[in-house]
Amino acid sequence: MPSLEVCLSPQLIQLYDLKGKIVVVVDILRATSCMVTAFGHGIKEIIPVASVQECKVLQQKGYLAAAERDGSKVEGFDLDNSPFSYMSEHIKGKTIAVTTTNGTQAIVKSLEADEIIVGAFLNINTVYSYLLKQNKDVIVFCAGWKGNFNLEDTLFAGALTNLLQNAFKITQDSAIMALGMYNSNKNDLLKFVNTSQHVSRLANLDIHKDIAFCLNFDTYQSLPIYKNDRLVISC
Amino acid sequence: MPSLEVCLSPQLIQLYDLKGKIVVVVDILRATSCMVTAFGHGIKEIIPVASVQECKVLQQKGYLAAAERDGSKVEGFDLDNSPFSYMSEHIKGKTIAVTTTNGTQAIVKSLEADEIIVGAFLNINTVYSYLLKQNKDVIVFCAGWKGNFNLEDTLFAGALTNLLQNAFKITQDSAIMALGMYNSNKNDLLKFVNTSQHVSRLANLDIHKDIAFCLNFDTYQSLPIYKNDRLVISC
Repeated sequence: MPSLEVCLSPQLIQLYDLKGKIVVVVDILRATSCMVTAFGHGIKEIIPVASVQECKVLQQKGYLAAAERDGSKVEGFDLDNSPFSYMSEHIKGKTIAVTTTNGTQAIVKSLEADEIIVGAFLNINTVYSYLLKQNKDVIVFCAGWKGNFNLEDTLFAGALTNLLQNAFKITQDSAIMALGMYNSNKNDLLKFVNTSQHVSRLANLDIHKDIAFCLNFDTYQSLPIYKNDRLVISC
Repeated sequence: MPSLEVCLSPQLIQLYDLKGKIVVVVDILRATSCMVTAFGHGIKEIIPVASVQECKVLQQKGYLAAAERDGSKVEGFDLDNSPFSYMSEHIKGKTIAVTTTNGTQAIVKSLEADEIIVGAFLNINTVYSYLLKQNKDVIVFCAGWKGNFNLEDTLFAGALTNLLQNAFKITQDSAIMALGMYNSNKNDLLKFVNTSQHVSRLANLDIHKDIAFCLNFDTYQSLPIYKNDRLVISC
């Protein structure tokens, strides 16, 4: 039986051996939710980069570009980090360069893994089915907030652990905690996430519509997978 | 109103500003439980050191010395890391040099704080009363396991947060999670801790008696506090 582990923040990822494993990168508010949404609306590729500068270079080469820092769009870029911005016909078939405070950094830190896929509540059952079929060890990698633990990514880790618990060994403390947290709050995820630091930090940024959307299960069946420096749809 | 935050592991402590704050170091299994027990039985001082080598040097200078790595006593030292070893008349009035895999490392990483105190279930109400009186910002610092999150230290953080929640601002995600985890499991802490990695890791070391003891509330009223490179009783 393969194992499922949870990494609670990018500051902890060096404690994990990623080799031969599938990493599920999660940044619910809002990087991976945006990515899943974008692929659900027909985007071709996403190039995740760690720095605003690299993202700028790709924009200058003609790509659409999205840069977020501290929860807001960086000036001069084409797209922000609301999933609603990725529902437009204009992005269909395009390649987008993306950098975010937490989510893209987590992807960049996962390169030693056998595979990197992108998870969100918006595609959780697609992630679940994929992992079940692959039958490999899994690490759910919570992007967190500036290196630290956050509630919303851990909640997703718990929801995914809940789906996979009969097919995977769940013996790691972080996974046990995440599962318990999800089970205690599954009847009202929005209420729970509204207690989080993320919401109080960004309350002035009018993101409540985004947050409610990001907590929907299975709006899309897209599964972004990292291949040759970019995210594409698994097929 | 002062704030209470939780740091889930030594790998995350650099994300916290310790200046002007009280750090409560916790390593339930078993460093801080042993320390509280030792002071409860009349020990004079504990010198926490980061390395086995430093501990050896202090032993050679004539101190009693306890060194633990990976859950077991390091050969050649006087004391192991079972709280029952610290209940002897022989340690009364003595100074002990201690190094452990996680707990003493956490103390060494907290030196920028205004005060460092040692917490365990065994003295939780003494810790609570002290913090209430000081009225300063608090960071509960979970020693974890080799840099990563663990259930038992976070459970203590949740129990302490539960006691302090009306007198402190609790807005940080790690503290909210710890409080929820404690509330979900408070009716049977032992059952919950028995699901942990620590127990499966050390199952062969016959530590079940230690674990049950370390989950007792308020067996002692001792409050170890760090002053001039060593832990003494607060007075």
